[in-house]
Amino acid sequence: MALLNTTINDFLDQLATKEPVPGGGSVAAVSGAMAAGLISMVCSLTIGKKKYAEVEAEMHGLMDRAEALRHELQELAEADVDAFRRLSAAYKLPRETSADVAIRRDAIEQATVVATDVPLQTARAAASIIPLCRPAAEKGNSAAISDVGVAVLLAQAAVRSALLNVEINLHSLQDTRYVLQTRAQVSAITQSLSADTEAIMALVNGQLA
Amino acid sequence: MALLNTTINDFLDQLATKEPVPGGGSVAAVSGAMAAGLISMVCSLTIGKKKYAEVEAEMHGLMDRAEALRHELQELAEADVDAFRRLSAAYKLPRETSADVAIRRDAIEQATVVATDVPLQTARAAASIIPLCRPAAEKGNSAAISDVGVAVLLAQAAVRSALLNVEINLHSLQDTRYVLQTRAQVSAITQSLSADTEAIMALVNGQLA
Repeated sequence: MALLNTTINDFLDQLATKEPVPGGGSVAAVSGAMAAGLISMVCSLTIGKKKYAEVEAEMHGLMDRAEALRHELQELAEADVDAFRRLSAAYKLPRETSADVAIRRDAIEQATVVATDVPLQTARAAASIIPLCRPAAEKGNSAAISDVGVAVLLAQAAVRSALLNVEINLHSLQDTRYVLQTRAQVSAITQSLSADTEAIMALVNGQLA
Repeated sequence: MALLNTTINDFLDQLATKEPVPGGGSVAAVSGAMAAGLISMVCSLTIGKKKYAEVEAEMHGLMDRAEALRHELQELAEADVDAFRRLSAAYKLPRETSADVAIRRDAIEQATVVATDVPLQTARAAASIIPLCRPAAEKGNSAAISDVGVAVLLAQAAVRSALLNVEINLHSLQDTRYVLQTRAQVSAITQSLSADTEAIMALVNGQLA
């Protein structure tokens, strides 16, 4: 895991350069991982507290799911860099002969499918954090309620960000069946995203008031 | 800069523990810094390209502002940890005598003001990224349009996240004048946040379509 073993300062410095990686795809995955990490923190701050003994088993289950999503998103941040490198390499293939051109075209198509699948998985994983935020807000340590709010806001931003990376790649694909299937999945992921996020934000703001 | 000199993997692991720092306040600042870094990247990918020669001076100016905000947000991520530690220390002061109680109460009040000011500055800095996204979307390298979208989404999430940390601290403050002043600033920051974000997202989606 090369990318995430850099310091945050170095990652941010690299981000700001004209090197296209790390870019928006990895940033989306890191944002989702931070959202998942905050849910784990809220669970950790709830587990072992007398006042919350009744929900302890539920918090353990919630934390396990948040940690699984966090690790998946950390891997996806790395996978995004690999997918970009593969795509760049495909674009650099020779195009001297008509055979070259065909090989290059297929390599670009295949690499673009991977570069689309990675942010699609990122969007799906980040969207899976949102249902975890509701029990965290309702039953978790109320001292950490603002952290639940940050988690849901970042998870939503991660989903929408990842889907922009899906969209930009879909435009260069020839395989219309894959494009249509992917668009259907994008619609399913976004359908209740905004409503679900704002419903949890209403719970958070209700507890803050 | 201790916090941001940890690797992203370690930061995410620490986030997930029951240690309250790093928490939502630092995550908000890091998210804002990633948004600013992406705008710098878009400017870097525009500068030096023949096709974009006309906007080169504007892109340099944009990048300078994005970089200043990025560095401010990186410092605010660290400042959030310091503010939390100061507040924790204040809560741990002795309360044996009535003099102790008064000293402790004042220390908590002062530390809470700092713990409110830091996320308020974070929100303000993150909100300042949003106006930079419009020229980046309109005039920057169109190959990086999805990165502008990620930047505006993350900047918005950073603003809202930081303001949750302002809100949770305002509730424990006695100084009603400070509370009212701060609430007025929060209102000013959030007033057109959602509309501005979605207007830029419409530009981004228009270019992606």
